[in-house]
Amino acid sequence: MKIGILGAGQLGRMMALAGIPLEHEFYFYGNPASAPAAVAGQVFDEKDPSALDAFIKASDVISYESENINAELVQNIELKKPVFPSVKSLRFSQHRLTEKNLFRELNIPVADFYKVESLEELKGAIAQLGLPIVLKTTTMGYDGKGQAVIKTAADIGPAWQQLKGNQLIAEAFVNFQRELSIIAARNAKGEHVFYPLAENSHRDGILRLTQVPAPGVSQQLQQLAEQHICSLLDQLDHVGILTLELFDTGLEGDQALIANEMAPRVHNSGHWSQQGAETCQFENHIRAISGLPLGATNCRHPLAAMINIIGKKGDKNLVLSEPAAHLHLYGKSERANRKLGHINLVADDATHMQQLISKFDGFMQECGE
Amino acid sequence: MKIGILGAGQLGRMMALAGIPLEHEFYFYGNPASAPAAVAGQVFDEKDPSALDAFIKASDVISYESENINAELVQNIELKKPVFPSVKSLRFSQHRLTEKNLFRELNIPVADFYKVESLEELKGAIAQLGLPIVLKTTTMGYDGKGQAVIKTAADIGPAWQQLKGNQLIAEAFVNFQRELSIIAARNAKGEHVFYPLAENSHRDGILRLTQVPAPGVSQQLQQLAEQHICSLLDQLDHVGILTLELFDTGLEGDQALIANEMAPRVHNSGHWSQQGAETCQFENHIRAISGLPLGATNCRHPLAAMINIIGKKGDKNLVLSEPAAHLHLYGKSERANRKLGHINLVADDATHMQQLISKFDGFMQECGE
Repeated sequence: MKIGILGAGQLGRMMALAGIPLEHEFYFYGNPASAPAAVAGQVFDEKDPSALDAFIKASDVISYESENINAELVQNIELKKPVFPSVKSLRFSQHRLTEKNLFRELNIPVADFYKVESLEELKGAIAQLGLPIVLKTTTMGYDGKGQAVIKTAADIGPAWQQLKGNQLIAEAFVNFQRELSIIAARNAKGEHVFYPLAENSHRDGILRLTQVPAPGVSQQLQQLAEQHICSLLDQLDHVGILTLELFDTGLEGDQALIANEMAPRVHNSGHWSQQGAETCQFENHIRAISGLPLGATNCRHPLAAMINIIGKKGDKNLVLSEPAAHLHLYGKSERANRKLGHINLVADDATHMQQLISKFDGFMQECGE
Repeated sequence: MKIGILGAGQLGRMMALAGIPLEHEFYFYGNPASAPAAVAGQVFDEKDPSALDAFIKASDVISYESENINAELVQNIELKKPVFPSVKSLRFSQHRLTEKNLFRELNIPVADFYKVESLEELKGAIAQLGLPIVLKTTTMGYDGKGQAVIKTAADIGPAWQQLKGNQLIAEAFVNFQRELSIIAARNAKGEHVFYPLAENSHRDGILRLTQVPAPGVSQQLQQLAEQHICSLLDQLDHVGILTLELFDTGLEGDQALIANEMAPRVHNSGHWSQQGAETCQFENHIRAISGLPLGATNCRHPLAAMINIIGKKGDKNLVLSEPAAHLHLYGKSERANRKLGHINLVADDATHMQQLISKFDGFMQECGE
């Protein structure tokens, strides 16, 4: 099958590397001059007006690697070729208001929120929610961009100056212990598979470290997370990978997990699955969108972790001389705050995993901005 | 690093898929019209007289996917770019006589053998060795081609007619219980890693099934095999993967393993390592030839197996609906006796593995010729 991917970055690259052994061919639509995916398929130049039609024509089925793409474009492509996940999943993921309304409708707990279109509405929202709040753009936010935390009344003015002109959402600040994510796949037959809850550590809004399974997660918490993402998958008639970011509140019962946002795609917090799971998220996404049975998601090792390589690539030999480490670089040049690759770690127990993570402490400092 | 591979078949394809995450780029020298590797790098057309120089120029280091290539060519390439494994490893692997002499020199047991260049020499060899013997061409044999078994005096004439005109070797028939192989990697620093002994089941000279670790193998047998391949690696100053095919005689001591032949490359009996080992043979070959530390070879699961898909591709859905199975297709069209792909299986115990292999019994019949 010929699979077209809107975008030609590292997610497309890793989807192709996972899909080629299934005898799929890959085509990408993006910028050929900066295309980590180009090693694994032809890149149609998005600056060339005739390229889109050629890309669509070349593809049997089309997917994407970012939710920050033009939904109109995807809707038009759907008239010609199947697109998975569909534009429905894409639109809900693109807009924090409709997304949060969907979560509410499906009884997935969310932080209280208000739409904000003026400074008055912002002040009204704060009167309802109290402080602190998080003020976010409803669209195009990623890696911590497009948001501001308002802790005191003095922060209101600067936050408004920073974000005004966008449609905004004011969210109650969730008192959480840590950030988790769950990744699941659904195919067109409605079959689901779920990966274990991951614990994600961010700095400056960028994911630094993922640990799987999230330390200390109970079976009940895993089940609750699966129940939430399963509701979303079925409600959206989603085909492909879906990621749900959650806050772990430490509370008992339904309020244990508060949904933050979802992404209709393979996700940075699922990269561990390349070494840690029987079938990685990339292969399961490709299996799902190409109508194949989904692969087993059980862990190959008791514990797995993923360290992002950011800004600088660091010492390849240092990484590869650690037997429990695997290196995945994206073919990108070094630049501050740029995701250049990741390291997957596997371990049989928590002590070994802590040793491994400590071993890469210096590396994470050097290759972390 | 830019890695050039002589050949553009499935082995090149899988080397590239394993090497791309290490940020290597791949170039191939072969037939672009029939190139499983073309999905992962540019193929320089071997029919174009200017392509070889361009291929060499594009590559920082060069390797190959078959020992049935022109050694003169490789020797000439070595004058311009590093080639791993070197032409020394290649020449010894290409010629059954020099290969067997090397085995003897390193105290690696081999079947008694005689060089045969005439019908008289063949009869002389039979007088020394007794019957049965195996008569083989000294060069270019693979997948059971270029050989004949002489069981009785009546077989001498037909075998001679079949093989005459080639330099031949007459080998005593080894009374073996099963065929094993060991795969190892060595890098330029002289570091080694070893995979567990694999048991290989052939039919019509073509590998059908590999099981790892070979059932019932003792630690002593594994050590003996590692000792043999280690001698070869060091003697040849080999860089890359080396495969040693062995006969398991069931005897005690040094005669437990009789060496059959070696291959200076990734090997069909190592494909299981893609799912079964912490680092697969393809990645370790690429790590070795690109000067990187070697990866851990420990098994991710207690048992692994590999089934070759031959002639017909069979039902993808059947394979992928088995959670313990992984599918690797090569992008080739169906043709009798053609290797089109393989299935990797993993299991926690022998009962489960036997169930899995039995489950694919029908598949192996259908996709086995």
